[in-house]
Formats: sequence, structure tokens, C-alpha cells
Amino acid sequence: MQKILAIDAGGTSTRAVIVDLSGRCLGYGLAGGGNPVSAGIDSAIDSLATATEQAIETAAEGPVSFSSALMAMAGASAATSVAQISERFKKLGLTGELVIESDLLGTFFSGTFHPQGYALVAGTGAVAARIRDGQLDAVADGMGWLLGDTGSGYWIGHQVARAVVAALDGRAPVTGLTGLLLASLQLEETPERVDGRPLVLQPLIHLLYSLQPIELSRFAPLAFQAQDDHVARGILAAAASALAGTLAAVRDPVVDGPVVLGGSVLSSGMLTGATPLAASLKAALGNAELIPVRDGVVGAAVLGLLRAGVPVDREVFCRIGQSVTPLR
Amino acid sequence: MQKILAIDAGGTSTRAVIVDLSGRCLGYGLAGGGNPVSAGIDSAIDSLATATEQAIETAAEGPVSFSSALMAMAGASAATSVAQISERFKKLGLTGELVIESDLLGTFFSGTFHPQGYALVAGTGAVAARIRDGQLDAVADGMGWLLGDTGSGYWIGHQVARAVVAALDGRAPVTGLTGLLLASLQLEETPERVDGRPLVLQPLIHLLYSLQPIELSRFAPLAFQAQDDHVARGILAAAASALAGTLAAVRDPVVDGPVVLGGSVLSSGMLTGATPLAASLKAALGNAELIPVRDGVVGAAVLGLLRAGVPVDREVFCRIGQSVTPLR
Repeated sequence: MQKILAIDAGGTSTRAVIVDLSGRCLGYGLAGGGNPVSAGIDSAIDSLATATEQAIETAAEGPVSFSSALMAMAGASAATSVAQISERFKKLGLTGELVIESDLLGTFFSGTFHPQGYALVAGTGAVAARIRDGQLDAVADGMGWLLGDTGSGYWIGHQVARAVVAALDGRAPVTGLTGLLLASLQLEETPERVDGRPLVLQPLIHLLYSLQPIELSRFAPLAFQAQDDHVARGILAAAASALAGTLAAVRDPVVDGPVVLGGSVLSSGMLTGATPLAASLKAALGNAELIPVRDGVVGAAVLGLLRAGVPVDREVFCRIGQSVTPLR
Repeated sequence: MQKILAIDAGGTSTRAVIVDLSGRCLGYGLAGGGNPVSAGIDSAIDSLATATEQAIETAAEGPVSFSSALMAMAGASAATSVAQISERFKKLGLTGELVIESDLLGTFFSGTFHPQGYALVAGTGAVAARIRDGQLDAVADGMGWLLGDTGSGYWIGHQVARAVVAALDGRAPVTGLTGLLLASLQLEETPERVDGRPLVLQPLIHLLYSLQPIELSRFAPLAFQAQDDHVARGILAAAASALAGTLAAVRDPVVDGPVVLGGSVLSSGMLTGATPLAASLKAALGNAELIPVRDGVVGAAVLGLLRAGVPVDREVFCRIGQSVTPLR
């Protein structure tokens, strides 16, 4: 029976799934970062192959071959590497074509089989897309840590670090984030002062500058932990408002459909629970149906089937989701 | 007659002056960045020496020797390099001690001979200090581009870049800053669009990420050029408010005195003229006497005299200022 390989290749992790033409998932695999831009081409290809080999193993039906493969990846990052990736996948059983699609489509089709609507992703970065006729129609933000990605995990973590530094410096309100940030870096506040400032400020600054800027994203969870804190709440409210603005930039009254939400910031706290923040973000996102997804692997399978000429209706879509869950 | 060498060593330029014990400036020299941290120790020492050699030349009194030397520099950046710097300066005529002081004191004493008050500096970075008994009593900000320096040249330039990217991306209001930024990078807006966005956004992002982040400070002047623009005015108002907050963090009701203002942001537009911004910053800074200074070289001379045991009163202070001006 004909099979398709579908891969959701992210910056930090990669998921591969083998589906038949009815949408039934036969095997599933998980590996490290599979984006050639962030991981480097060799390391990315290794991750893509590892996830695929795992999927083949769990399929447990002996030798497997795929009539086609689809990879959902950020931007056009892998466009120049298609030949190199194809070569490796032929050895793994790929008999047909390898297609690369935007990870935004992977996210979108993980939440719906409808050909139009919106995707809003906030992980380390932040980006929104309008989807029409199954294709990207417009994109907003995704401009990276220095110039955009407002409301992203990096953006929140950066604001947390700046707020703590400013509070210790006496330039901003005292915040519960200080204790959380210092503890996460194994630092402690002591009564000693230098030039009128707490002694701990120097090692804190030194440690934070020793990180790559993008690593500040690891402090984003502290804002969710400290949701009772006035400063943390302010940061999250500003992030929610920025994300709503990014989505608004791609809204088109002609394009009606659900808003699929992806990325750790949107799945891990901002929308869940009955917090005032969740309510305000939901309000900002309007009356659209909001569909959070944990990753883009279901969407990669949808795209793989569509590109192979298999129509994906509600039944096929549900079968993909229901058959992949027990394999994870 | 006994002479003192005084140097104002900045990140991008260095000024040296030779003064006698009455405060009369005999020679003046100017060179490149003299801060060992930003320029590297060898390059910094070369700049310090070049400025000093120029000062000796303009003094034009034949061979010159100095009984002592004082250098005003950011932070304690040169503390570990004193021996190496001393060695080089002995060859240039230094017979006595080399002392390094904070550039914040250099700025402060460029504006006043009073032993207490405040300094607020906004160049590429931003920092405020309280001075008591001629010494640093408290410092706020100066935390660098990633974690602080709110209201600085970097901060303003970064906001300009983000505002233009967001405007082109359809996430923020159209701004006159766009044309200025694109022109400064030899880019042009065309009607073509990609994924619903102007084509020029891609080369703009690419160019901006090819810079070191700190280089975004070069776009700060665009905000001053575009003061009629709503977005530019908002950025400058936020910068003014942040700088006022940094000064407020070091204010102490017991310490009364002038506020000496240094750095390109405060000298080159924010306070000059009768703009609403200048008025709002002046109001935020309170009723204190505001004294803008162009650099820290007069203060380095004041510190050099004080450390040599020469009292600096109004007469000596005025003599330094009046005698250095024609030499510049």
C-alpha cells in the first residue's frame, strides 16, 4: 500500500510520521532540531533522518518505502538544500518527490482541514499568516529577535530580564520576577551594595551577557509563573496585545476561517485557564474559532496527502489526529 | 612649571589636555577611541598616546613633562591596564602617578566645580550618577544595549529600526522614519510585494541583521530629523521619560546641586530648541540647574588638579574652560 512520509521540522525538535492514503498514521518519530538555518545542514539532515528511522521502526511492518515526502519548515530555509536532503531520503526508502512547505501551513493544517483561515505562532519567535486556497496569502512579523517577534518567547524573556535589572537598579518597581530569575541562575540577593546598587547586579549582568541574546527566551516561563505579580502581568498583557496586533495585520474580511494557534507561548499558559490574560487575548483575537495545536505534524501529513492528490475531508483529518496520538 | 596631563577617554574619541596648576590649558589633542574595553588595550593606548602627543605639540614649549596624569574612563574598565598605560606614558614625559577616574566624574566636573550634584549621560549608552564630596555616591543604568541603557542613542536607534520594520510589515502606523531609514541604507521602496509585504522588507532585514546590534545607534539621529512625525515623537518622548526615570533613581533630597548633561543624545537635539520634547524633558528633570557639556575634558582637568592637591574654585574652573576652548 502506498505510503507518505510527513515531517514537521522545527528549530528545536523534529517530528516524522508515516501515513497511508486514508490518513492512518503507521509510525511516528521524534528527533532534535531539523531546520538547516538554525541547526546547520548536516545536523538538520541527521535529525530529519533520525525521526524518519524511528517512524519506520514504530511502523513495524518490515521494509517501508514512501511514494512522496513532505517537510514543513520555517521560511524557505531548506529550499537550497532540497537535493542534499532528497539524496539522504532515497536511502531511507523515498521513491518519489520531496516537497518542502512553510511551517505556517503545517501549523494551520494541524488545526483544521479547511482551506482558509489564519495561523498565529508564538514560540521563540512570533509570526502570523493568512491562508487562502490552501496557500500562504499574507504573513506578518517573524522578523527575528532584534527587529520583531513582538510577543514571542524571546520578547517576553527579554522583558523579564530588563524588568529585573531595572528593579535591582532602582529604576523600576520591585517585582517577584527578581527572585525567580536569580534562582534560575543560582544567584542570591545579599544586603551588600556597590555604587548604591545591590551587589548581585554585577554577576547577574555578567551572566546574562554571557548568553546568546536569543537564549533570553528561556526566561519567558518565569512571567507565567509570576502571573500574580504586577510587572509580570504587564509584560504578558503587552505580549498578548502585540500578538493580537500581528494577527490583525493579516486579517482580511474576505477570508473567514479558524485561527490556529501554535508555539509554546500560546499553548503553555497564555490561553489556557480562566486568567484575565487569557480572556483579554481571546477578546483581542475576536470572535473567530481558536484552535490550539501542540505542533505541526498533523498538518504536515495533511499537506503530504493534498500534494499527493488525496482530498482531505473531516473524516481523513480526524483519522490522522486520532491515529497519531497513541504513537507519540 | 609643574604641569598635569588630563585625558577624557571615550568609546569613540579621546581628548587630552595639558594644564598648569592655575588651570591654564597649554595644549590640546584629539584621537580615536581610548576605552580599553571597547577598543582593545593596544588600540586604546595608541589613541591615548596620540591625543597626548598632539597636546604636547600644540603646547609648543619644547619638551614637556607631567607631574601627574588623570584619565576619565567608563567604569573600572582600565583598572587592570594601569601598569601598561603608565609604561607608555613615562616615555611621553610622565614623571609621577597615573590615576584613573570614572568618566561620570569627568562629565560632572566639566559642568561645575561644586562637589555635589548629578550627571546624566546619554550617548550610545545611558547612565546617571549622584556625586557627593567629589566622589560617585550612586549610579543608575549603564547596563548596556541588551539589558538597559533606556533612552540612549542605541535605544532610540533600535526603536527607529523596529518601528520602520513594523510599519512596512503592516503591524504599526506608517511613519516618516521609513523613508529616512531606507535612504540611509541606500534602499528604495517599490510597489512589488512578497507574501503580502513590500519587497524592500527582505533586504532591509538582511542589512540590519548584518550590523552589530550596537550599530543601530547610528539611526538615532533620524528620530531627531523626523520630529514632526508622530512615531518619531513617541520614541523621543519615551526616551526622555526613561532618562528622567534613570536620573530619578539616583536623586537624594539631601544632595542638592546641578544636573550636568553629557552625551550626543542630550547635547544634540533633545534639550536644545523650544521643542515640546525639550520642554517635557526639562520638566521631568525638575527645577535643578541643567548644565549641558560637550565632553568630559574640562572635568578631567578639574579632577587632575584636585588629585594633585590644587583646590578648584570658580576662578580656576573658568580658566580651564576659557583656555581650552580656543585650542579645540
